[in-house]
Amino acid sequence: MQGNVRPETMERITTPELAQAFIDEQIKELRSQIGDKKVLLALSGGVDSSVVAALLIKAIGKQLVCVHVNHGLLRKGEPEQVIEVFRNQMDANLIYVDAVDRFLDKLANVPEPEKKRKIIGKEFIDVFTEEAEKLDGIEFLAQGTIYPDILESDGVKAHHNVGGLPEDLQFELVEPVKLLFKDEVRVVGKALGLPDNMVFRQPFPGPGLGVRCLGAITRDRLEAVRESDAILREEFAKNGLEGKVWQYFTAIPDFKSVGVTEGKRTEGWPVILRAVNTKDAMTATVEDVPFKLLQHITERITNEVANVNRVLFDLTPKPCATIEWE
Amino acid sequence: MQGNVRPETMERITTPELAQAFIDEQIKELRSQIGDKKVLLALSGGVDSSVVAALLIKAIGKQLVCVHVNHGLLRKGEPEQVIEVFRNQMDANLIYVDAVDRFLDKLANVPEPEKKRKIIGKEFIDVFTEEAEKLDGIEFLAQGTIYPDILESDGVKAHHNVGGLPEDLQFELVEPVKLLFKDEVRVVGKALGLPDNMVFRQPFPGPGLGVRCLGAITRDRLEAVRESDAILREEFAKNGLEGKVWQYFTAIPDFKSVGVTEGKRTEGWPVILRAVNTKDAMTATVEDVPFKLLQHITERITNEVANVNRVLFDLTPKPCATIEWE
Repeated sequence: MQGNVRPETMERITTPELAQAFIDEQIKELRSQIGDKKVLLALSGGVDSSVVAALLIKAIGKQLVCVHVNHGLLRKGEPEQVIEVFRNQMDANLIYVDAVDRFLDKLANVPEPEKKRKIIGKEFIDVFTEEAEKLDGIEFLAQGTIYPDILESDGVKAHHNVGGLPEDLQFELVEPVKLLFKDEVRVVGKALGLPDNMVFRQPFPGPGLGVRCLGAITRDRLEAVRESDAILREEFAKNGLEGKVWQYFTAIPDFKSVGVTEGKRTEGWPVILRAVNTKDAMTATVEDVPFKLLQHITERITNEVANVNRVLFDLTPKPCATIEWE
Repeated sequence: MQGNVRPETMERITTPELAQAFIDEQIKELRSQIGDKKVLLALSGGVDSSVVAALLIKAIGKQLVCVHVNHGLLRKGEPEQVIEVFRNQMDANLIYVDAVDRFLDKLANVPEPEKKRKIIGKEFIDVFTEEAEKLDGIEFLAQGTIYPDILESDGVKAHHNVGGLPEDLQFELVEPVKLLFKDEVRVVGKALGLPDNMVFRQPFPGPGLGVRCLGAITRDRLEAVRESDAILREEFAKNGLEGKVWQYFTAIPDFKSVGVTEGKRTEGWPVILRAVNTKDAMTATVEDVPFKLLQHITERITNEVANVNRVLFDLTPKPCATIEWE
C-alpha cells in the first residue's frame, strides 16, 4: 500500500501513455491488496469517485459494490448518467438508492445553511450505512481521496470523503488516486473511457443544489434551480464558455417579486446567475459574459422554468462575496 | 379657467421662447384666478410640482404656501435640494415637515407591497391635512396635474395628485400645467430657472424608495438603498448614461447571503441594479451597461454601503418582469 506522501520522483501524469502506465500499475496493486474480497464505494458521479470506480471495475469487476445515493440535490441528468455509464456501459455492481423524499422531508423548513449542510451530511452517512449493513463480506471501503485532500489535512489525518461511518463498520481503506492532483485524475479518467462531461465536470459542492436553493428548500424551488442550471450549462456549452469559465451555476433565493405576463400581474422567484474564474478558489473574478448571451439565457429561463420571472447576474468578486451563496 | 381638453390649435412648447410665452400667459391667468387669496401646494420635488411651484411663486409670491413632506423615502439629497431651491433661492413660503419617524414607524413589519403603498398614501394625506388645517384663509389647492394624467383618467374625472383630502377641506383647484405633456413641462421648468437635475429627473414612484426597500422596510436597509442609489446615479452621470438611460435605480431584497472580508465570514444584503429603457412604460428593455462600469459600481457599493456584500444586475425585460420590483 502507498504511503501518504507523493515521492519527489513521481512523474506528473499528463499524457494517455502515462495514464495507462498508472492504470496498469494500480490494477496490479489493487488486485494484490484486495484478493477475492469485496469493496464498497460511495459513487457520487463526481470526477474522483467515478475514476476510482472505473479503476476498480477494471481491477476486480463485480467484487466492487458501488452505492449511488440520489439525495435529490444533484444536477439535471446526473443520476441517470451514473446508471448509464456504470451499470449499462461498464456492467458494474451498482446499487441505486432513491433517497429523494427522505432528504427533502428532513430538509423541509430548515433555512439555516449550516444546519442544512449537517442534515445532508448526516443523512448521507445514514443511508450509506444502511446499505452497507445489508451487504455481507465487505472488507474494504474505496474512496476518491486525492492529493490536495491530504495536503489540506496537513498530513495529520487522512481526509475521508465518507467520514463519520459508525464504529462497528470497520473497513480497510482503498484510495488508488490519493497521490494524484486533480488534473492527473482527469487524464486517468479519460484513459479509462469515462465521458468528457464526467471527467471535466466543474466543481460541485457536496450538498449539491441544496446550497443553491437558498434558505429552506422546497421541491418546486429546487426544481427551478435544477432546470435553470441545466439551461445555463447548455447555453455555456453551445457558446464556447464550457471549459473556459471555471465555475457557473444558478441559485434561487426564497424571495418573490412582481412581474407581468400577458397583461396580468404575476409573482415569481428571481434566478441568480453566477459565473466565476479562479486560480486557487481563495479569490475569484466574475466572467464578462456577452450581454447578448445573458439576454438569451434570461429569455429561456423566464420562458421555460415555472414560477420564475426575473434573472439576475451576480457581479461580485471574491472577496467580498463567496463563490456560493450560502 | 381652462377646460380639460387641449385645443387642437395649441402649439407644442419646444423652445425657451414658447415656454416664456406660456409662462407670461399663465402668470396673468393665475393672478386673475387667485386674486389676493392663498394657495396650498404639496411640493414633492418632482418635475411637475416643482414647475407649478415656480410658476406660482412668479405669479403670486408668498401667497403660495408650499408643503414639503419628507417621509424618509426620498432619494439622497432631495429634501435638501427642495429647501435650497425653493426657500433659499426662490424665497418661497415653504413649510418643511420632517415626518420620517412617523412614516417609518407605521411601515415597520409590513412586508406586503399593497399595504405599504396604502400606508404611505394615507399617511401622506394625514400629514398634509394636518398642515393645511394649521393654516388660515387658504382657498386654493395647486396640483401638478399634467395632460397624460387627464388622458389616463378617460376625461371622466380629473386625476388628483393629492387625492383623498377630507370633505371639510374644500379647495378650488389650480392646475396650470394640466394641458402640457411631460416634455413641455420640462421646457417650461428650464425657462423658470429650475436646476437641470430637477427638470430632467427620471421618473420616481410616489411611494419612493419604499417600494425599493423590498418587503418590510427597516431603517438600515432603507439607508443602504438610498446610498447605493446615489452611487449608481453618480456613476451613470459621470459615464454619460444620465439622460441616455430612461430609468435606473437600486433595490434591496430582505435576504442576506454569505461573503468574506479579510478572511472573515460576513452576512450582507445584495443590491440589485436596474437600468431600463422604454418608450411607453408598457414594455421595457434592459440597458447594456458596459461590464467595466458595472464592476466599478459593484466595487464602490460593496466598499461604501454598510451591510452590503453583493451586487446583482437585473437582466429581465418588461414583460415578464415589471420595471419596479414591487
